[in-house]
Amino acid sequence: MSEPLFGRVAILGLGLLGASLARATRRGGLARQIAGYARSSETRARAAELGLCDVVCDTAKDAARNADLIVLCAPVGAFGALAETIAPVLKPGAIVTDVGSVKSAVVRDVGPFIPDGVHFVPGHPIAGTEQSGPDAGFAELFDGRWCILTPLGGGQGDASHIADRAEVATLAQFWRGCGSDVEFMDPHHHDLVLAITSHLPHLIAYNIVGTASDLEDVTQSDVIKYSAGGFRDFTRIAASDPTMWRDVFLNNREAVLEMLGRFTEDLSALQRAIRWGDGDALFTLFSRTRDIRRSIIDAGQDSAVPDFGRHAKPDAAGKTNTDD
Amino acid sequence: MSEPLFGRVAILGLGLLGASLARATRRGGLARQIAGYARSSETRARAAELGLCDVVCDTAKDAARNADLIVLCAPVGAFGALAETIAPVLKPGAIVTDVGSVKSAVVRDVGPFIPDGVHFVPGHPIAGTEQSGPDAGFAELFDGRWCILTPLGGGQGDASHIADRAEVATLAQFWRGCGSDVEFMDPHHHDLVLAITSHLPHLIAYNIVGTASDLEDVTQSDVIKYSAGGFRDFTRIAASDPTMWRDVFLNNREAVLEMLGRFTEDLSALQRAIRWGDGDALFTLFSRTRDIRRSIIDAGQDSAVPDFGRHAKPDAAGKTNTDD
Repeated sequence: MSEPLFGRVAILGLGLLGASLARATRRGGLARQIAGYARSSETRARAAELGLCDVVCDTAKDAARNADLIVLCAPVGAFGALAETIAPVLKPGAIVTDVGSVKSAVVRDVGPFIPDGVHFVPGHPIAGTEQSGPDAGFAELFDGRWCILTPLGGGQGDASHIADRAEVATLAQFWRGCGSDVEFMDPHHHDLVLAITSHLPHLIAYNIVGTASDLEDVTQSDVIKYSAGGFRDFTRIAASDPTMWRDVFLNNREAVLEMLGRFTEDLSALQRAIRWGDGDALFTLFSRTRDIRRSIIDAGQDSAVPDFGRHAKPDAAGKTNTDD
Repeated sequence: MSEPLFGRVAILGLGLLGASLARATRRGGLARQIAGYARSSETRARAAELGLCDVVCDTAKDAARNADLIVLCAPVGAFGALAETIAPVLKPGAIVTDVGSVKSAVVRDVGPFIPDGVHFVPGHPIAGTEQSGPDAGFAELFDGRWCILTPLGGGQGDASHIADRAEVATLAQFWRGCGSDVEFMDPHHHDLVLAITSHLPHLIAYNIVGTASDLEDVTQSDVIKYSAGGFRDFTRIAASDPTMWRDVFLNNREAVLEMLGRFTEDLSALQRAIRWGDGDALFTLFSRTRDIRRSIIDAGQDSAVPDFGRHAKPDAAGKTNTDD
């Protein structure tokens, strides 16, 4: 077996992402030693029981000390304090990265604490489940998923021209070792792309589930019993970790509000078309949206099976029932 | 093999639903003869090639003649004209039903054309896929799905007290033979329940996909490439048949606008919480929405696997990747 990519890898935060990363790192033989840290003693105890890491530390400092790669896996709102805490023990040449769903805010909060000689390369693996906590982690989480790295100093736009910097190349190699496909972007563009492809969809899902739970004419049990007509998709998305998502919206505010504004404008137009019985307007939109779906299937980003394409199988008939 | 439930079953409309119903009817041995009709000659020709029915007729009248059960499987907007066309040939004692996603409008449009001695029992199987057309049909579509019957004369509220009427009981038996679980409701309540559990989710999905396709700062290819972060779920829903859904929104306008109004109010509050950085408000909602998900899983309406629970399997690790 070849020499591991890193000596010591420190994973700070052992929830779904951190626990999965620990398992993926071990599966890939990417570290000689995996050190883990979690804020709560319960999580640390559980991580030790699960054997997620070679060593579970009581402080972030102890975990980061002597580490060659430090991965921030806590909710993004906690990154600043975490970076300030570990800064004094970061060793020269070490790489600091993260798995946060927003990137500009992470650059803003973490960047100032990174000492000279330490490499800071923000990252975001586009992978997760609606589960949370160390028990939810699994080594396959990142398999075949995109991991976006947003190395700094690349300026706006495509960041691939700095992708060949040694520390960036090494981190990319690490993620590929975890099963991911790696892409490069500048932090601002990442936040715009994720605002529409992930953050707004989650916001809308949380919102409609909230609306449904407040109805008087329709009982909760009706909603639950007949949730298969489309609603159920939203409930799954709206079951994602509240702390993580609170921090996402607080830390990608401008991009989310921009996308939400456009969404609301379009929804008002749609509402008007329904009120005035403008069937042509409805038909035109409903036909247009079909094309994007085809592009996604053509691009291999999804098969004609559920969203969980890589993890789910169609039924015997090769169809997936969406209960429309 | 026991005597079929019906002599001749006429299926008017041979798209996803009609084609699936023809296959399910045959699988269940529920008819001595299955007669089909489709408006377009292409669909009729394809239905004949697929052998969906025992006989494919060029007119709705020919299909409905001598039928013991007539099922309207066209988009709901076409039901009125269809009912008017077949009315003269409906035989006494025959049952007329439908698979429309709205029920009050169907009662309004179809009811007046039903002759005395013919039984009209509106219905709605909560099943479908994002596919369309006769080739998309499969016999298992209705397996384990709810089929809501809205028999008339039951007044508002629970309609179960008229569920024991002979024709209603027979139709319920037919749907159970197609693999469905049958429930009874009054049309108005059905439309309210489906407005929140199915119609609004589809409207929102169509809308966000439309919004995403109109962006300037984020390219289509970015949206497609990174659609796994939640957006992809919406694209699948927004790939549903445009004609069917146009008719749903035109024919359940009041209920949809009511639910949409509540959704928009709640979304404005959420938007404000993001703008003003009210993390507590966000966290409270995001925690509350988790409970409904648990109820759905507890109620067996979904497993912890993808929305397509009955048709999809989790990955080896028993997890489903939502790419959050």
